[in-house]
Amino acid sequence: MLNTATKKIFKKVLELSEHNLTNNRIPIASIIYDYKNHQIVAKATNTDSPIGHAELEVIREALEIKKSNRLDDCDIYVTIEPCLMCATAISKCHMRRIYFGAEDKKGGAILNGPRIFESENLKKVEVISHIEEEKTSNLLKKFFRSKRNK
Amino acid sequence: MLNTATKKIFKKVLELSEHNLTNNRIPIASIIYDYKNHQIVAKATNTDSPIGHAELEVIREALEIKKSNRLDDCDIYVTIEPCLMCATAISKCHMRRIYFGAEDKKGGAILNGPRIFESENLKKVEVISHIEEEKTSNLLKKFFRSKRNK
Repeated sequence: MLNTATKKIFKKVLELSEHNLTNNRIPIASIIYDYKNHQIVAKATNTDSPIGHAELEVIREALEIKKSNRLDDCDIYVTIEPCLMCATAISKCHMRRIYFGAEDKKGGAILNGPRIFESENLKKVEVISHIEEEKTSNLLKKFFRSKRNK
Repeated sequence: MLNTATKKIFKKVLELSEHNLTNNRIPIASIIYDYKNHQIVAKATNTDSPIGHAELEVIREALEIKKSNRLDDCDIYVTIEPCLMCATAISKCHMRRIYFGAEDKKGGAILNGPRIFESENLKKVEVISHIEEEKTSNLLKKFFRSKRNK
């Protein structure tokens, strides 16, 4: 079971994702939360750039805000399972845990594909997955359906 | 054999790497070159951020300069073999080819570790490796030696 703070943050992730959808962008958002100081450090959504994924954007912002090279006391929240680029970036920042919604069977790199946190070369990150699975999965489906119908 | 333009660009990569070393930063640099228009699009070096790798920095700059979501007519040059995060980012931008120096047996993701361009899920990128192998390898060794002696 997720605690109240976690549910609240994931709700914000969903709101940001939906907002991206209304702007005709892929509904993916990410939040970095400092669980020691109980505060949100940074929020971001996907941009139109092929490397402008919400996770990379939010990490960059959080590192700037923390004026640090690590995010040890932080967890990252994201709409769906991260890709290989973002999952590696998350591991490099020494975060404690990742919370995400639906799996991404094609592009995901944590539960699918290379399952990178099983690799010995990367720092492991705790994984809480399948949060609001139907809602997050439907958000993505809605976006790709709208793209196909154009 | 590398042609004159390629040698010239890789020389610039080495100069930028050496410059980073004099600033006490890891000697890694990257250049994106538009091979159709015969011009350098962007240059970058590693920053102090754990995700501030030269390849990510140079890609972000090149996408902004090109005002595009792809870098089809471009090649990327980098001091050593890219990590998993950067190799994935390179694949996402549809570049034609990567040129790099020494292998990175521990952190590299192209010739070592997951060898990601052999994966079916990612767009392949042509690879020219081991350019100025000794020089690039020594640059990195010099940096890590100086860190250990501090």
